[in-house]
Amino acid sequence: MKPIKHIKIKENQTIKELVKDMKETGFQAKKISQASEILKQMIEDKECKIFLGLAGAMIPAGMKNLILKLLENTSCFVSTGANLTHDLIESLGNSHYQGDENANDEELNKKGLDRIYNVFMENKVYEDLEDFFEKNWDKLKDCKDIKQFLWKLGEIVNKEDSILTKCYKNKIPIFCPALADSGIGLMIWGQKAKGKKINIDAFEDMKDIIDLAWQSKKTGILYIGGGTPKNFIQQSLQFSKGADYGIQITTDKQEYGGSSGAKLKEGISWGKMKSNAKFINVMCDATIALPLILS
Amino acid sequence: MKPIKHIKIKENQTIKELVKDMKETGFQAKKISQASEILKQMIEDKECKIFLGLAGAMIPAGMKNLILKLLENTSCFVSTGANLTHDLIESLGNSHYQGDENANDEELNKKGLDRIYNVFMENKVYEDLEDFFEKNWDKLKDCKDIKQFLWKLGEIVNKEDSILTKCYKNKIPIFCPALADSGIGLMIWGQKAKGKKINIDAFEDMKDIIDLAWQSKKTGILYIGGGTPKNFIQQSLQFSKGADYGIQITTDKQEYGGSSGAKLKEGISWGKMKSNAKFINVMCDATIALPLILS
Amino acid sequence: MKPIKHIKIKENQTIKELVKDMKETGFQAKKISQASEILKQMIEDKECKIFLGLAGAMIPAGMKNLILKLLENTSCFVSTGANLTHDLIESLGNSHYQGDENANDEELNKKGLDRIYNVFMENKVYEDLEDFFEKNWDKLKDCKDIKQFLWKLGEIVNKEDSILTKCYKNKIPIFCPALADSGIGLMIWGQKAKGKKINIDAFEDMKDIIDLAWQSKKTGILYIGGGTPKNFIQQSLQFSKGADYGIQITTDKQEYGGSSGAKLKEGISWGKMKSNAKFINVMCDATIALPLILS
Amino acid sequence: MKPIKHIKIKENQTIKELVKDMKETGFQAKKISQASEILKQMIEDKECKIFLGLAGAMIPAGMKNLILKLLENTSCFVSTGANLTHDLIESLGNSHYQGDENANDEELNKKGLDRIYNVFMENKVYEDLEDFFEKNWDKLKDCKDIKQFLWKLGEIVNKEDSILTKCYKNKIPIFCPALADSGIGLMIWGQKAKGKKINIDAFEDMKDIIDLAWQSKKTGILYIGGGTPKNFIQQSLQFSKGADYGIQITTDKQEYGGSSGAKLKEGISWGKMKSNAKFINVMCDATIALPLILS
Repeated sequence: MKPIKHIKIKENQTIKELVKDMKETGFQAKKISQASEILKQMIEDKECKIFLGLAGAMIPAGMKNLILKLLENTSCFVSTGANLTHDLIESLGNSHYQGDENANDEELNKKGLDRIYNVFMENKVYEDLEDFFEKNWDKLKDCKDIKQFLWKLGEIVNKEDSILTKCYKNKIPIFCPALADSGIGLMIWGQKAKGKKINIDAFEDMKDIIDLAWQSKKTGILYIGGGTPKNFIQQSLQFSKGADYGIQITTDKQEYGGSSGAKLKEGISWGKMKSNAKFINVMCDATIALPLILS
Repeated sequence: MKPIKHIKIKENQTIKELVKDMKETGFQAKKISQASEILKQMIEDKECKIFLGLAGAMIPAGMKNLILKLLENTSCFVSTGANLTHDLIESLGNSHYQGDENANDEELNKKGLDRIYNVFMENKVYEDLEDFFEKNWDKLKDCKDIKQFLWKLGEIVNKEDSILTKCYKNKIPIFCPALADSGIGLMIWGQKAKGKKINIDAFEDMKDIIDLAWQSKKTGILYIGGGTPKNFIQQSLQFSKGADYGIQITTDKQEYGGSSGAKLKEGISWGKMKSNAKFINVMCDATIALPLILS
Repeated sequence: MKPIKHIKIKENQTIKELVKDMKETGFQAKKISQASEILKQMIEDKECKIFLGLAGAMIPAGMKNLILKLLENTSCFVSTGANLTHDLIESLGNSHYQGDENANDEELNKKGLDRIYNVFMENKVYEDLEDFFEKNWDKLKDCKDIKQFLWKLGEIVNKEDSILTKCYKNKIPIFCPALADSGIGLMIWGQKAKGKKINIDAFEDMKDIIDLAWQSKKTGILYIGGGTPKNFIQQSLQFSKGADYGIQITTDKQEYGGSSGAKLKEGISWGKMKSNAKFINVMCDATIALPLILS
Repeated sequence: MKPIKHIKIKENQTIKELVKDMKETGFQAKKISQASEILKQMIEDKECKIFLGLAGAMIPAGMKNLILKLLENTSCFVSTGANLTHDLIESLGNSHYQGDENANDEELNKKGLDRIYNVFMENKVYEDLEDFFEKNWDKLKDCKDIKQFLWKLGEIVNKEDSILTKCYKNKIPIFCPALADSGIGLMIWGQKAKGKKINIDAFEDMKDIIDLAWQSKKTGILYIGGGTPKNFIQQSLQFSKGADYGIQITTDKQEYGGSSGAKLKEGISWGKMKSNAKFINVMCDATIALPLILS
């Protein structure tokens, strides 16, 4: 047994040192350190393909660069439509704003501000989105599946710090099964409502993610939040030999039975996770956990 | 100010009496009672269309009859694909089983049992699903959007206690933007992988839910869990005058910024909820809250 | 394996029937039913002494009658000082009030209202408490330990629906290691500050609870919330053979390492719980769980 | 409005830089940064007396040095008995150990290991505690209140890295209203059970903390966890003008009505917090939040 060592804060200590020190502690601090180690292992394992699932409003919360960093080692990216919409909104020149969760929602509404806990967004960003889709529809209208469509968006906006562009340029397959449930989905509907044509098959790119899971010698999963992204990756892993590495960052609880809060261990029963896999559940707001783990 | 009255348990007390008594108490017990009242109001308000969002494994947990009951007053139903798949699994003659969350997942895997917290499911249910889709593909293959597809499923299985059948028979529009992320999605992929043809547009039925929101004089929302169902309804409400009534049952927390945990009040800033709407957030496992509220 | 049976809500269904039905479901609904069964078993086991720990503002929330009911079968009662103070406040003729958690705290302060989430209390209740202690000090001043002092309070107030009175009359030992941390503690300090004498030993009644644990053939624990009450009972159980039955109702999480959220299973390592004990953790607001379990 | 700025991780970035960057983000990352700023302000405000409340097993989890650091600026320290016991255990030469929350509790019990989530402790530490109290009883037996007793313990163990010693040496008043509810309490009981005499008044040192609150020009509160330490400080603040600064680190939720999860804002209604106070609630495991905030 190894003794607990108490964390020491030194002047100008680096994050890397802190996370290393957390390894010798307990509770969730230790989990942060273990997650950091497992992430390193799955990146360094050349046979391992990393599947990244992203839920929760991480772009509005200021985590975009961290996601961009993670994408450098990602073989498969599944996101909520919301995060991709927020990424696109920023690429079109708009910002998210530092806000206050106790602000009066009625007054925010009058000011045209949408609240996401303590982050604000101007409602007029939707006008820029509409202009963008109106202007670029011809380039988008021939896409046949969601992955193609999202890559095409990334090609068009073409911004250094865009998640969509990064996925397009690095040919990282990007899945978003619930794209209809997002601002981007609304824009597509808006074009269709004007009589424009597009035909994006809801199931066409499932083949790609299942093939990826099937063909990978080893797989590593990294879930930031739960929701559809986690579940969609878990589903595809039924066609793999089971993941070899796993990290889940969520504050949801297993006791209420939902997929988002389920511990990674549960995946062993389904064959989605190997019984000897290295995995860890981190219970911490991802806006705090991510910068520490990525250090 | 009204004084708190202490709950009295009488021999053979009815649930209805208990929930009435909870009205005069505090904390979440009071919320249960308030939710029950608001549900009653939105049902009795003849101008109000009820939008029901369902996430979390409510069918495996034994809540199917309660959902069926709720559907009797529902004008728009949005669900995760998982709940619909579990509904279909039961319609095909399979059961979910009472389990133990501390069971050994490796042994469960060997026995062919998939674990959902303290509920088990036989992995072989997927074989029955495959047979069903194989056998009925001709009836399904011409569906053009997800709503049509799900109604068709409900028509084919044709079971009294099936959610899909109930929606089909009562013409309740049923949306599932992330259907690809479910066992039903896998089955569609399976048929496509065999070379069979189907073309289900990912955005086609957005028109229907947006029209519903747009045309309703009044709207009431009832969210069991968060996830895509909540978000998809919230999104459509941007095209309404804002909901008039709202109930949310979730244990997720607003502090982490995700859509699932956001309090209904936040929707006022977005114009998704009227500032004078009657709404309540209930923080309780839905398997406990639902039977009480529905009493 | 037993199949999940879906809950059916019938007209005028009793709570007892619902809780029975919950036994065949999953997630926390099932826990409610299991807790109800274990409670029945520990009450019916004539060799078993029940230790009840009470934390969280259950008296302000309207749960007093349920606690009184539980005390009928309790051999040892440990409470926060706050719950006993709120019980005393009500015995002196004051009420707690139904409130709103979104009320403006500054305005409440001006109105002399103290907020406990969605329950209000008039700040002037402290004046009645002061009068009571002033008037009855002579009867209290000779108490030598906390248990004696609390029984004496119960004897003086002498109300049918008082927890303190019930403990006094039924000779249920009542422990409150942190009594200083409560309104009652403040009143004792107030009398001392006026120069009155009293000498209550902080450790004197530990003997009683440890003897109880030591001498009981079997023990059953029932924790409503965590905190000092749970910990104090757990501590005494180290001197027993380990509890035979256990129920814990809390929404705190084990992942953060605190005693309040620790699962009962952890007690096995400490010898506080038998390895073959029947125990259950219920994750639900006690204001909802208690009336169901006690049905 | 200030735009959200995305966190950038640079090679060898310091914690200080990260926390500064978090200020421009959202969700709980921003709270970490705000807490860090408020802590700085209350330390630099020469008129402000800081009241530190400590609950949760922070010593076993490896946070002792951070607490020692905080004590340098603390005027009043309230702790659970458990943390002080764990501090004493380490001062007597024992360690806590890095463990696994999934370890078999029955086997741990056989090995004489007590589990605190993912931290282990040898059960035989109690023997060393007994020896210590046996040997030093004569020095302790004349203490008349809990504060004196704890200072005396700190004087006797006399270790550089002991919380008890630090409080003794720096004359930081240390309160522990529920000391009976801890290993130290057990040891006192053990001596009394052998017929040794000691008389520690349960309410004697309330005067000290209330005087401190009363006499302080300004007060700042820092709650690590909730429980008795938070509540005892809150109670004393009723005798102040209300706190000027406040930080609360907890994962407990306000919705269940307990004192531990109550937002600091609630204290305004009670007069425990000024309505214009600077305060922040951080929802994060303290083992992660503390090293960041203290950077």
